[in-house]
Amino acid sequence: MPQRKLIPPGHGDGLCLSRGQHLRLIDPEGGQSGDLFAVSLDGRQRLSNGRTFDFGGTVYLSAGNQLWSDQSEPLLTIVADEVGRHDFLYAPCNDDMYRKQYGLTNHRNCFSSLTEALRTLGVAPLPLPTAFNFFMNVDIDANGKLHIRAPKSRAGASMVLRAELDLAIALSACPASTCNGGGATKPLAYEVF
Amino acid sequence: MPQRKLIPPGHGDGLCLSRGQHLRLIDPEGGQSGDLFAVSLDGRQRLSNGRTFDFGGTVYLSAGNQLWSDQSEPLLTIVADEVGRHDFLYAPCNDDMYRKQYGLTNHRNCFSSLTEALRTLGVAPLPLPTAFNFFMNVDIDANGKLHIRAPKSRAGASMVLRAELDLAIALSACPASTCNGGGATKPLAYEVF
Repeated sequence: MPQRKLIPPGHGDGLCLSRGQHLRLIDPEGGQSGDLFAVSLDGRQRLSNGRTFDFGGTVYLSAGNQLWSDQSEPLLTIVADEVGRHDFLYAPCNDDMYRKQYGLTNHRNCFSSLTEALRTLGVAPLPLPTAFNFFMNVDIDANGKLHIRAPKSRAGASMVLRAELDLAIALSACPASTCNGGGATKPLAYEVF
Repeated sequence: MPQRKLIPPGHGDGLCLSRGQHLRLIDPEGGQSGDLFAVSLDGRQRLSNGRTFDFGGTVYLSAGNQLWSDQSEPLLTIVADEVGRHDFLYAPCNDDMYRKQYGLTNHRNCFSSLTEALRTLGVAPLPLPTAFNFFMNVDIDANGKLHIRAPKSRAGASMVLRAELDLAIALSACPASTCNGGGATKPLAYEVF
């Protein structure tokens, strides 16, 4: 039985995955989204939304799709997905965004959670491109306008990704209420197996 | 009358813009797309599709929209646009992509054109995130699938961007026939004023 680890609301965590290992991302309470960033352990390949869109031909990733690096190698394969809707368009929420869009200062944010997590793994965090926003629910209308909806994840829902390389992974439980149904932000959890 | 400079098919060019200067991107023959990457002259801010989507709330950018940096500052404002459809999802075409998707080697590619152009300006080119693919026409269907169409730009069509900071700019005329209507790739041109 894999050990489950909790990510407190608005916080992050870092972990390493060996090639072939699986990472289960879990929404214990439901309606909570998070960010995932991946770097190859040798530091040479970083997650790329642009190459993922190019190789996958879709902006909505689910089981069967892969997350690609900026060197055109698959980093992770989504092997199971109980939620079915994730975002890979939005940059991680960050200090500037909270200040400029909401007038908030010193708000917890995914950018800081991810960069801190990468530092704990000895990985250079910057520049940090767009992370994979798992469970984040964004609709694109016919005019290209983006609409952030409540996550579709119900309590206990999860997705599983398989590492295709030895990876450093940063995770965060997003503190933006707009991305998480409007209420208080909740924890996330993960298992490695 | 601003000097017009040609970018040969499949090639690139680098230039600097002072804050307040304008860059006109021109499709002389029609049906040709290109890539634009921008870095602040002090090297601290790089173009970010994720922050542009976040601050603009749209994936389809046109007149009135801004291109944002990874430090949440506007780098460029689109002040005029005769074409009306551009892409900011796809990574620049690159050697790996031509090899893996088409079995082609030593194909000219936007990634190399952009990184070479940045080097001529003394700007660190890597890691290079997603560039702004002007005149590139990508439809997103209701399931999130991406469909590359012929550019909507007609011969002589242009768009104008205003620099909001002192910038280093890399441009490329895309050599991917799939992105340019399927035929031979064509030149692009630009003017600074």
